[in-house]
Amino acid sequence: MPDEFRPLPLSPVELRSRFRRGDLARPTAGLAPGFVQANLVVLPRALAFDFLLFTQRNPKPCPLLEVVEAGSVEPREMAPGADLRSDIPKYRVYRDGTLVEEPTDLSRLWTDDLVSFLIGCSFTFESALIEAGVPVRHVEQCTNVPMYITSVPTRPAGVFHGPMVVSMRPVPAGKVVRAVQVTSRFPAVHGAPVHIGDPAVIGIRDIARPDLGDPVEFQPGDVPVFWACGVTPQAAAMASKPALMITHAPGHMFITDRRDADFAVL
Amino acid sequence: MPDEFRPLPLSPVELRSRFRRGDLARPTAGLAPGFVQANLVVLPRALAFDFLLFTQRNPKPCPLLEVVEAGSVEPREMAPGADLRSDIPKYRVYRDGTLVEEPTDLSRLWTDDLVSFLIGCSFTFESALIEAGVPVRHVEQCTNVPMYITSVPTRPAGVFHGPMVVSMRPVPAGKVVRAVQVTSRFPAVHGAPVHIGDPAVIGIRDIARPDLGDPVEFQPGDVPVFWACGVTPQAAAMASKPALMITHAPGHMFITDRRDADFAVL
Repeated sequence: MPDEFRPLPLSPVELRSRFRRGDLARPTAGLAPGFVQANLVVLPRALAFDFLLFTQRNPKPCPLLEVVEAGSVEPREMAPGADLRSDIPKYRVYRDGTLVEEPTDLSRLWTDDLVSFLIGCSFTFESALIEAGVPVRHVEQCTNVPMYITSVPTRPAGVFHGPMVVSMRPVPAGKVVRAVQVTSRFPAVHGAPVHIGDPAVIGIRDIARPDLGDPVEFQPGDVPVFWACGVTPQAAAMASKPALMITHAPGHMFITDRRDADFAVL
Repeated sequence: MPDEFRPLPLSPVELRSRFRRGDLARPTAGLAPGFVQANLVVLPRALAFDFLLFTQRNPKPCPLLEVVEAGSVEPREMAPGADLRSDIPKYRVYRDGTLVEEPTDLSRLWTDDLVSFLIGCSFTFESALIEAGVPVRHVEQCTNVPMYITSVPTRPAGVFHGPMVVSMRPVPAGKVVRAVQVTSRFPAVHGAPVHIGDPAVIGIRDIARPDLGDPVEFQPGDVPVFWACGVTPQAAAMASKPALMITHAPGHMFITDRRDADFAVL
């Protein structure tokens, strides 16, 4: 296991404080197991209504956990006392749709005009799948989940539009029903799959060549199962080329104080 | 049964067209069984972000079905071709927080600055309760559901804040678990109860004197069960005294083309 993925026995608040001090900058997979991790999208206030409406219209790719209004940096529901400008290990800053830097702190960029959106991440349901006996191949293979740009459009809202991006996990045929059941319990983190089986149906030409992330190896009898992916809102936001957009860096998520189990329905 | 509650064998589109022509103005309970009915809140664009955020922060009292943006009057997801200015049997118009009129058509009031919000209504889960063998007392007694202003605060958003309003249904003790299960399947129409049992716990002093609607008679062994109520967002919006707010008149809902079953999870 590479060093950067080694587990650390730290609580969410301890991890955030190390990210804040700047003495730890690594992907968050495997950290604070059992606690919800979130995607971050930060936009100027003028785009906030359109983006909020985009998440409301596309709840599977954009399961919204919390909105932090302009003038605040504290996600009071998900992590009271946290500071969104510093408590993520690495950020990405886009200007006019172009990636310009990857800072570990946003203090010098921040203005009172920025609205922050925390969006659910599939780490939560992957733990639940593993606990339910459904193997997660890319975790077994220590690679990033493969992601694909589909031919399925999102429902547009104002300036935001674009195709749905999905993640794919090979699931043994006999476990596909269980995988649907387990992930249906977590609508706040993408929920049930959007498609099972033939990739061509949703416009994916070559399952072996993902648009993002890494290819994953199928085991005999595995069926491809597709879930809506949190990259969708970032891609839609970027396509609108906002003057400024800030996100977490891929894999470097915001670790919250809320437990995965709090977001299960039934 | 009073004439105004008599069933009519008309489809949602036929009913909306009669409301639009103005030759039918009656409460919608019992009409188009199996189809989702919705609450309407219309606000000026300047308040739309705050109100959208209020619904996102309070999904149980404010389960948002669709937002129709400024410049449009057609809820394309819930009822393609419908016109929100005319397809509801009766409206309420509030100016600076005061009810000023109850028109049956909004055409002369409408401007391109207005944003419309359709919010789920408990009619959907009441049908599901009855189908599951859980008696719904106020339906049996042909009265309006009793509603109470609680001591439970909503999560504020911008100018919107206020207490949660709940509806109450007496449920036989042996059916309470079933009532929780059945309504949990419908998060888009208020979902699971917010409280079971002692009304005092949520600040209700006298169960026999609801703040809105009618008192309901308990049968021996009935337990009070409380669900978040769609009056909550109206009350919160009104408390902010917007220059203009338009809603449906109580009981006169927007009848959509979408089936109740489409909104069941699991």
